[in-house]
Amino acid sequence: MPTKRAITYLSVAEEWPTLSSAERARRLQRLPHEAGHEFFFDLGAADQTGVLLALPPGERRHWIRLLAPDDVADVIQAAPDDQRGGLLSLLDEPTRAEVAALLAYAEDEAGGLMNPRYMRVRPDMTVAEALGYFRRQAQQRAARDIPTYAYILDSQGKLSGQITLTDLIAGDPAANVGHLMHTNIITIPEEADQETVARLFAEHGLAAAPVVDATGRMKGVVTADDVVAVVEEEATEDIQKLGGSEALDAPYLKIAFGRMVRKRAGWLSALFLGEMLTATAMAFFEEEIAKAVILALFVPLIISSGGNSGSQASTLVIRAMALGEVRLRDWWRVIRREIAAGAVLGTVLGTIGFLRITLWHAITGIYGEHYMLVAVTVFGSLIGVVTFGTMAGSFLPFILRRLGFDPASASAPFVATLVDVTGLVIYFTVASVILRGTLL
Amino acid sequence: MPTKRAITYLSVAEEWPTLSSAERARRLQRLPHEAGHEFFFDLGAADQTGVLLALPPGERRHWIRLLAPDDVADVIQAAPDDQRGGLLSLLDEPTRAEVAALLAYAEDEAGGLMNPRYMRVRPDMTVAEALGYFRRQAQQRAARDIPTYAYILDSQGKLSGQITLTDLIAGDPAANVGHLMHTNIITIPEEADQETVARLFAEHGLAAAPVVDATGRMKGVVTADDVVAVVEEEATEDIQKLGGSEALDAPYLKIAFGRMVRKRAGWLSALFLGEMLTATAMAFFEEEIAKAVILALFVPLIISSGGNSGSQASTLVIRAMALGEVRLRDWWRVIRREIAAGAVLGTVLGTIGFLRITLWHAITGIYGEHYMLVAVTVFGSLIGVVTFGTMAGSFLPFILRRLGFDPASASAPFVATLVDVTGLVIYFTVASVILRGTLL
Repeated sequence: MPTKRAITYLSVAEEWPTLSSAERARRLQRLPHEAGHEFFFDLGAADQTGVLLALPPGERRHWIRLLAPDDVADVIQAAPDDQRGGLLSLLDEPTRAEVAALLAYAEDEAGGLMNPRYMRVRPDMTVAEALGYFRRQAQQRAARDIPTYAYILDSQGKLSGQITLTDLIAGDPAANVGHLMHTNIITIPEEADQETVARLFAEHGLAAAPVVDATGRMKGVVTADDVVAVVEEEATEDIQKLGGSEALDAPYLKIAFGRMVRKRAGWLSALFLGEMLTATAMAFFEEEIAKAVILALFVPLIISSGGNSGSQASTLVIRAMALGEVRLRDWWRVIRREIAAGAVLGTVLGTIGFLRITLWHAITGIYGEHYMLVAVTVFGSLIGVVTFGTMAGSFLPFILRRLGFDPASASAPFVATLVDVTGLVIYFTVASVILRGTLL
Repeated sequence: MPTKRAITYLSVAEEWPTLSSAERARRLQRLPHEAGHEFFFDLGAADQTGVLLALPPGERRHWIRLLAPDDVADVIQAAPDDQRGGLLSLLDEPTRAEVAALLAYAEDEAGGLMNPRYMRVRPDMTVAEALGYFRRQAQQRAARDIPTYAYILDSQGKLSGQITLTDLIAGDPAANVGHLMHTNIITIPEEADQETVARLFAEHGLAAAPVVDATGRMKGVVTADDVVAVVEEEATEDIQKLGGSEALDAPYLKIAFGRMVRKRAGWLSALFLGEMLTATAMAFFEEEIAKAVILALFVPLIISSGGNSGSQASTLVIRAMALGEVRLRDWWRVIRREIAAGAVLGTVLGTIGFLRITLWHAITGIYGEHYMLVAVTVFGSLIGVVTFGTMAGSFLPFILRRLGFDPASASAPFVATLVDVTGLVIYFTVASVILRGTLL
């Protein structure tokens, strides 16, 4: 029997998306103590920041101190520039130092993703001592801060092993931690980017992994729950770039209209300027078109086939790069494979095109007496255009990565634009060879 | 000082990608006991299956029984059909029943992702009793099977709360579990699809979440480490579809050439058949082209602008749908927004196009006496084509989802193909209105 207008975790969760920041802060303050804290923990960084800034300054301190240093760093990154100093000053001195260190990492590096607080035990501790240490830590902080791994470091701070809470509970209380620890650990270099971190977690099904610097010294821990959000974010960015737009960096229905249009107009205009070269190329072949208007009929078909096969190839290569399946040094293997694939795909499309023209002509007779030569022109052009498109589409991500750009910028529209001009040149060149003396 | 040719976890990890399944099995057998087990745990399901099948039948039992039921289910799903029964028969009876139940879930449902084994405690247990139960469980099984959450169920098997191992360690040993448990739990319906599961994990930063059936009865646990792999996989599928290809379902450099080409040829051919309509549309306007060859020059520019703006819009909408930011019922809000965005973007491109033609003519004079009318035709067509492309691109994912297809199939090439024919019709219609009496 629900109490009349009772403020519960679930009732707040339900109306949350429709509330202003001020209303959210008020609801959170009216929730029972523990439920309020849990609710606050469960929010994303942007929402946590909104709530914090909507609270009276005197209450912010209580809430921000509930968070682990890595979460505080996210909150501060989500705050407007002029509020960051104020939020930082609410922390106690050691936490402030930890957060400042995290903020110095780029947001998309392993170092920016990790929690600098972790359980450190000595190899000569007994299991009972380590458990006692775990217990004291757990009693001092919010339970969800406590990782389920403890790390064994040597005297230089270098990582030598890890042990889970479960190992400790199952182990002989008198045994040394050094005997029970696991030493085959997948570690993450502190400057590794998010994509690399995500790949390691996905490949090895990790629940947590230690971050180490170049000398093997342990810096912090990344946990799988943080990585899930990162993987979604990375994929969103890549997908939006692949669609020929800047990454929106905000939910589609929430981003302001003007901001969204600006993010889209940039690439569209750039592509449009590139595509203008097709008008120049077409002008170059104006005479041929005037002599044989029939050639113009197949222009969209030919160039779009190049664009489609090119964007297919670039997308496959970009994703394989993001997953670490393909590296820069694999470029020659990939290009060779794509040229072969392009030749096969071009032959398939060329054959369909050839049949379309000859059969259609047999029925309607619209392609004139030289229809067979036109069909051969289309057949040959498609092989050339699709092979070239596939090759260019697969090569472009390598060039972009080599030059230090994000390969995902080799979007379908970008590749299509690149390939369109070449497609026209290939088509009209094949035509002038095959049709010379008849139509041209 | 490394032993000569010592077989270690790291040496095996290094050469792993280059080994055949038989060699992999041999390496694994030669690793020290614990390192071998850890290595096997760290493999993905496909590799685990490969190794299992390469082992002599007498040894398979040992290795497959190391795995938790959800991992066994993945291994069996990765095995060829004729090997599945044999692998299942290696399990002990209760595990076989659990795995069979998991295999009945679709692979991409929460039920197919969960581990049916979890720690269940009664609310009237004391903390000390619950910890003892944890300890016995941990001693009986491989440590990594043990989740760090325990769940409190009522007598009907309905979930009433959860508690972490850390809560237990930090808690008063004499306290009742029911008093310490957390009751505000984010649960996952058993039929939720992977995308929904991933979204819940990403939004709330979950480390684990219980799966419940429609009546609230607990069925198992999904952990963040499983979700990381799923999110990567889902994103890869979507990206490959967006690039106009079937999902490869295998790493790019590992998939057989013939299989890859078949997966790509299907969509390319379908798109090619659709694109043939452009030849039909062009034939319809053949007379206009013959009269004013200049019109043909801008065909690639106009139709590619429609395609580019359309694939931009469809990609943004598809990703927003996958992230749950946009639902089916939001269609009208989205379309309205996209029509407005399309009109703005079309005006931007139209203006660039207008300037290009008038300025280029001022320099070269190649566009003839009616260049201004041609520029106006291009300007007007671009507004129409880009607005239509944007609208069609954003609408198509809704139609596909409504019909039960994956919206990600509304790939950039698919949208471009759809928009190309319409683009031609819009262009030549605008041209015939503006140029009637002069060029036409």
